[in-house]
Amino acid sequence: MSYNLLKGKRGIIFGALDENSIAWKTAQLAHEEGATFVLTNAPVAMRMGQINKLAEQTGSQIIPADATNLEDLEKLITESVEILGGKLDFVLHSIGMSVNVRKGNHYTDQNYNYTEKGWDVSALSFHKVLQTLHKNDAMNEWGSIVALTYMAAQRTFPDYNDMADNKAYLESIARSFGYFFGKEKKVRVNTISQSPTPTTAGSGVKGFEGFLSYAEKMSPLGNATAQDCAEYTVTLFSDYTKKVTMQNLFHDGGFSNTGVSQEVIEKF
Amino acid sequence: MSYNLLKGKRGIIFGALDENSIAWKTAQLAHEEGATFVLTNAPVAMRMGQINKLAEQTGSQIIPADATNLEDLEKLITESVEILGGKLDFVLHSIGMSVNVRKGNHYTDQNYNYTEKGWDVSALSFHKVLQTLHKNDAMNEWGSIVALTYMAAQRTFPDYNDMADNKAYLESIARSFGYFFGKEKKVRVNTISQSPTPTTAGSGVKGFEGFLSYAEKMSPLGNATAQDCAEYTVTLFSDYTKKVTMQNLFHDGGFSNTGVSQEVIEKF
Amino acid sequence: MSYNLLKGKRGIIFGALDENSIAWKTAQLAHEEGATFVLTNAPVAMRMGQINKLAEQTGSQIIPADATNLEDLEKLITESVEILGGKLDFVLHSIGMSVNVRKGNHYTDQNYNYTEKGWDVSALSFHKVLQTLHKNDAMNEWGSIVALTYMAAQRTFPDYNDMADNKAYLESIARSFGYFFGKEKKVRVNTISQSPTPTTAGSGVKGFEGFLSYAEKMSPLGNATAQDCAEYTVTLFSDYTKKVTMQNLFHDGGFSNTGVSQEVIEKF
Amino acid sequence: MSYNLLKGKRGIIFGALDENSIAWKTAQLAHEEGATFVLTNAPVAMRMGQINKLAEQTGSQIIPADATNLEDLEKLITESVEILGGKLDFVLHSIGMSVNVRKGNHYTDQNYNYTEKGWDVSALSFHKVLQTLHKNDAMNEWGSIVALTYMAAQRTFPDYNDMADNKAYLESIARSFGYFFGKEKKVRVNTISQSPTPTTAGSGVKGFEGFLSYAEKMSPLGNATAQDCAEYTVTLFSDYTKKVTMQNLFHDGGFSNTGVSQEVIEKF
Repeated sequence: MSYNLLKGKRGIIFGALDENSIAWKTAQLAHEEGATFVLTNAPVAMRMGQINKLAEQTGSQIIPADATNLEDLEKLITESVEILGGKLDFVLHSIGMSVNVRKGNHYTDQNYNYTEKGWDVSALSFHKVLQTLHKNDAMNEWGSIVALTYMAAQRTFPDYNDMADNKAYLESIARSFGYFFGKEKKVRVNTISQSPTPTTAGSGVKGFEGFLSYAEKMSPLGNATAQDCAEYTVTLFSDYTKKVTMQNLFHDGGFSNTGVSQEVIEKF
Repeated sequence: MSYNLLKGKRGIIFGALDENSIAWKTAQLAHEEGATFVLTNAPVAMRMGQINKLAEQTGSQIIPADATNLEDLEKLITESVEILGGKLDFVLHSIGMSVNVRKGNHYTDQNYNYTEKGWDVSALSFHKVLQTLHKNDAMNEWGSIVALTYMAAQRTFPDYNDMADNKAYLESIARSFGYFFGKEKKVRVNTISQSPTPTTAGSGVKGFEGFLSYAEKMSPLGNATAQDCAEYTVTLFSDYTKKVTMQNLFHDGGFSNTGVSQEVIEKF
Repeated sequence: MSYNLLKGKRGIIFGALDENSIAWKTAQLAHEEGATFVLTNAPVAMRMGQINKLAEQTGSQIIPADATNLEDLEKLITESVEILGGKLDFVLHSIGMSVNVRKGNHYTDQNYNYTEKGWDVSALSFHKVLQTLHKNDAMNEWGSIVALTYMAAQRTFPDYNDMADNKAYLESIARSFGYFFGKEKKVRVNTISQSPTPTTAGSGVKGFEGFLSYAEKMSPLGNATAQDCAEYTVTLFSDYTKKVTMQNLFHDGGFSNTGVSQEVIEKF
Repeated sequence: MSYNLLKGKRGIIFGALDENSIAWKTAQLAHEEGATFVLTNAPVAMRMGQINKLAEQTGSQIIPADATNLEDLEKLITESVEILGGKLDFVLHSIGMSVNVRKGNHYTDQNYNYTEKGWDVSALSFHKVLQTLHKNDAMNEWGSIVALTYMAAQRTFPDYNDMADNKAYLESIARSFGYFFGKEKKVRVNTISQSPTPTTAGSGVKGFEGFLSYAEKMSPLGNATAQDCAEYTVTLFSDYTKKVTMQNLFHDGGFSNTGVSQEVIEKF
C-alpha cells in the first residue's frame, strides 16, 4: 500500500547498511511513496553492506561520502541536486558510532581520541551536513531534515556510553540549526528518538538483547520497529507536517512517558 | 490534493464551531482523506455555529453531546459506532473554555466554582470521553485519539489564566490513559500543542492580537494555522504513526524551542 | 547540627500527620534551623495523628483547617500572621488524597465525584492557599512557598491513578501563580518532586513495597527519605535560593534521569 | 552573614577570572561558609585575571591547569588533595569558550577546528575533570560536583552559537557520569542553568546588553546575579541536598518557565 505522500520529492538518505537498517527501510518506503533520492554511506560501511541491492530496488544512485569530510559532503550534495534534477526536499541522517563502545572502554574510562572521533561521526557530522546544504542553498522551501537519536540523550542507560552525550549534541544541533534554516529557508529540522532497534549497528551494544526485552515490556505499544520508524519518518518528510520543527520526537510505543509498567514492577 | 491517508477509517470529531475551528478544518481534511465520522459539539455551542454546513459538506451526521455528561457521551459513542458501521479508528477532542476568563477574573482572583466548571469542560471531559470509549470497547486496535492543547501547560502566559492548569491536567490524562489504552487495546493517545490560533474561541482571550504577533515573530516558521493543524492531526490518525503515544507534540513553527528570536530581541 | 538557615523566619506547615510525614520532619528541622511556624492539617486528619506532640517539640500552635475551604484558610492565615508576629516567609503544602485510590477504582473506571474531590484536596487546595496568601498580602518579600509532588505528573506509574493528573495540575499552579507572586511580591513558588516515601499516606498505595524497592534500585543514590526531603525543603526556604522559582525540582537520588539501572536491567 | 554550611569541606574551584566571575563569588562565599579549596584556571586566563587577590582573601592556593589537559588535571587533583589534607567534597566547573564566537563565525558558517576546540574546552573538559577525580578516587562520599550551564542547551538563542551545543553535551555528561559517580561513590553531579550574567566572559557575546534587558523583563524575579548563583551553588555543595543528582537546575528568576511576560508582550 502507498499514499504517494512523497510524490515528486527529492532527497538524500544517509546510513543504509543492510536490510535491518532504519535508513534502508526508509529508502524502500520513500520509493514506494513516490520519492527519488540518492543513497550514501561511508566508503568503509558500504563495503560491508549490500547497498547496491537497495539502489536497484529503488532506482537510486549511490554516492559514497564520509559524513565528517566537508569535501565529500560538498560533492555528495551538488551531485545529488544534479542527478535528481532539482533542489532537495528531504534528508535523513542515520549515522552513529562510538569508538569507546567498540573498544570496550567504560564511560568512566574514556580514551579522548576515541571520544572525539565518535563525536565527529555521530554528532558533528549532522552539523556538517546541514552547513553544506545551507551554503549550497540545496534545500527547497518547506523541505524536511530528520536525524535519528535515542533517549539516552535525556536519561542515562549505563551501556550507551558516550553515545548519550553525542546524541544530546546532535539534538541540540537540530534546534540550533533548525532556527536558522527555518527563518531563512523555511526548512524544518527534527530528530526522531527511536525505540532500541535491532539493526546490525545497534545490536553491537553490550547487553542489547536484555535491553530490547526490557524496553518492550516498558512500552505500552511495544518497541517501534525499523519499519515503523520508516513510516513515521515519511510523515515528517511529507507536506502534512510543515510546521513541526526543532523538535525531538519520541517514537517508542510510549516508553519515554512510562515511569514503570506493570510487567516490570512485578519483578520487584 | 489528497492521499487517502484515512481511507475506510471511522471517527468522532468534537468541537467544530465554525470554519475557523481547528476541528472544522480537520473534519474537512479527514473527509478528503477518505474518513467517515460523526460531528459533535455541546448543544449550546451548536446553536452559535454553522455545523450543519460542515455536516453536509462531509456527509456526516451530527450528534449533540455535552462532553461533561456521561449519558450524552455514552449515547454519542454507541450511536456513532452504529451509524458508521463499526468501531472507531480516531477521535479528536478540541474542547476548552474557562469561565474565569469569560468573566474577567484574574488568575489570582479565581471564583472556584468557575474554576471547577472550566476544569470539567476543558480537562476532565477528555477523561470522560476516553473512559466511555474504553468501557464500550469502541476503538479499533491501532486507533488514534488526539486532544488539542497549548504550551501554557509548560510555561506561564499571563493571560491564559486557569486554562494553563486545565491543559496540564489534560496532557497528563493523555499519558495516564494512554498507558492503559495502549496496553489493553493498542490505541494511542496524544496531545498536539498548537500555536495560538485565531479561532472564534481563541480570539476571546485578552490581548490575543498582540500575542499572535509575538508568537509569529518568535517562531522560525511562523505560527501553525488551523489548516496546518488539521494536516498534522491527519498524520497522527494515519497508520504511519502507530507507535507514537502518550506524547505531547509541539506544532508551532519552532516556538517551543526558541529562547528568543532576532526580531524579538531587537526590541530590547 | 544546625545552621540557623531559617533564623527569624515565620511560616505555615500543612500536612504533618505523624512522624513518618515529610511535613513532620520539615517542621522539626525548620525549628532547629531557627524558624517559628504554625502547624495545620485537616480536622479529620488531626484526629488520626499525633500533631500535638510535634507542636510541643517545636513550640508551635496548631490551627486546624480544611485546605479546600476558603474560610478556614482565611482564618488560618490571618491568625498565623498574628500569632507569629509578622508576615510569613515560608509555606509548605504537603497534602494529597485520591478517593478513587481509596475506593479501589481503577484509573479507567473513575467515579467522577471522587475525581473531583481528590482534585480539590490534592491540587486546587494549593491554588486556594496561594490565593488566600496573596489576597491577604501575607507573605514577606523573598518568601518561599513549596508544594510536594511526584514524578507521575510526567510519566505514568500504573498504580498512581488520578493522583498523576492532580500532581500535573498542582505543578502547573506553581508555575502560573509563581509568575504573579514573583512579579508582584518577589515570592517564589516551587514544587519538589520527591522519591516515593514510606509515609503513612504513601504506604496506602497498592503495591507500594515493590515500587519502593524498584525505585531504590533505579536511583543511583537510592531513594530520598523524608528526612532528606526536609533538608532540601529547608534550603528552598532559605535566603540562598532566592532566584529559584516556578520550578519542579526532582529530589530522587537520580531516578528521574536514569533510563535504566544495571540492577534493573539484569532482571531481563 | 554566614551559616557554616561548608564547614570542614574541601574543594576545587575552576574558572575564577575576576570579581565579576561566578566562580569568584562562589569562592568568596565558600570561604565564608567554612570551606577550604584550591583555585584553578587556565594559565592563559590567569594572566588576565586577578586571581592572586582572591587567593589571599580566601587563604587558598592556586594551581594553574588547562582543563583539557589530562596531565594538568592529574597534577591539580592529586596536589589539591595533598594541600587540603584529604579527599574533596566539592568541585565547581565554570569554564566555557567558543572560538567561533570570538572569531565572529556565524552558527551556520562554522570553522570545525574552532568548533572542536570550543567543545573540548567547554564540554569535554567536564568529563576530563570527572574522569580524573574518579580514577584518583579523589572525592569523599556524598561529595558534590557542579558545572555551570545555560538554557541555550534547551532552546535556541541566535547569538549563543555553538555554545548551545556544547552546553547540551555538558549537561549530558552530568547525567551520564552522575549515574556512575552516584552508584559507585555516592557523589552527586548537577548543572546549574544560570540567568545571563554580566561576567567578563559573558559580556563578550554579541548583543549581550539587549539580551540581558530582555531576560530581566522575562523573569518574574529578575535575572539571577553572580552572587545569587554563588549562594545557590553553596546549597548544592552542602549536606542538605544529598539526594539531588543528575539534574539540570534552572536558576533564573523564573525565565525558563515563563512563556511571555506582561512587559514583553506589551511591545507587540
